[in-house]
Amino acid sequence: MPDPHPLPGGAPGPADDPPPAGQGAPDPPPCKITTLLTPHPLDIPSFSAAVGSPAAGAVSTFVGTTRDSWDGKPTLRLEYEAYAPMAEAALGALAATAAGRWGLTGFAAGHRTGTVGVGEASVVIAASSAHRADALAAVAWAIDELKATVPIWKKEVFVGGEVWQENAEGRALMMEKRQRGAG
Amino acid sequence: MPDPHPLPGGAPGPADDPPPAGQGAPDPPPCKITTLLTPHPLDIPSFSAAVGSPAAGAVSTFVGTTRDSWDGKPTLRLEYEAYAPMAEAALGALAATAAGRWGLTGFAAGHRTGTVGVGEASVVIAASSAHRADALAAVAWAIDELKATVPIWKKEVFVGGEVWQENAEGRALMMEKRQRGAG
Repeated sequence: MPDPHPLPGGAPGPADDPPPAGQGAPDPPPCKITTLLTPHPLDIPSFSAAVGSPAAGAVSTFVGTTRDSWDGKPTLRLEYEAYAPMAEAALGALAATAAGRWGLTGFAAGHRTGTVGVGEASVVIAASSAHRADALAAVAWAIDELKATVPIWKKEVFVGGEVWQENAEGRALMMEKRQRGAG
Repeated sequence: MPDPHPLPGGAPGPADDPPPAGQGAPDPPPCKITTLLTPHPLDIPSFSAAVGSPAAGAVSTFVGTTRDSWDGKPTLRLEYEAYAPMAEAALGALAATAAGRWGLTGFAAGHRTGTVGVGEASVVIAASSAHRADALAAVAWAIDELKATVPIWKKEVFVGGEVWQENAEGRALMMEKRQRGAG
């Protein structure tokens, strides 16, 4: 039986400007990049492991989970809907930007779709770098960037009602998707 | 055989100002706090698990690892030496400050002592909060604060030499400890 939540193999991504050929110092290792959009539970340790590198002195990780209340009302679950091809492309672009901007040794981002119960993870970001400031800054930037630019929408289902969380860009895309009947 | 790297049970720490008694909203749950100074390998997932809470929507984690080079020279290992009673007290104070300042639902910090090989973790910080900005900010602050205030010293052992990493406050304490022959 296949692993229910496999992580695709890391692919080399952009790294800091390498030194000119012929210079003594060895090239920095390329940044390992992994992104995943999945209806299955996210295996958090596999994301931390995916960014591991002997050149890393720091690994920073962020996990977003469903909390038990929304606006004072008990939450039952969250439901995430994605425009998959565009969400995957946006995750990849975000990863490449983070890797290049902070000279990371590894970057991984995953988002779950469908129903996510209280206490379960909906999103994970992991980054590794030689020094701690870069991994920390990259993760803080990436989760904000993901929420702002990746077309994934969240419906909060709480006792007594439900509400879609707005995302200016995303909302327009979701409406367009629904009008077109895209899957 | 006892667990080689047990985490002590979480103890309640300071939380945000609770609402006045008699007000309708329930008290926020207290922050679960865990700190650990250990010569054994750090079990990273146990720190993330220790900060878990149904009231949390975010878990942020930082792990510091031994990287394979220092100042261009291959690193063989790091060696950490702590002034244990003071280090444990400083970790506890740091945790209480973080919990109160960011209204965390959970906070955990662990540091390993002794020899830490390349790729192994020497320090871990985890924090959870209702909203993501608090957990992210608390972890970034805590790792800097730990390096600045907790009396743990690092010796880098690389091919061709070794060097103690300075820590202004810590250096004085280490000298004092050595002069006094404290264990």
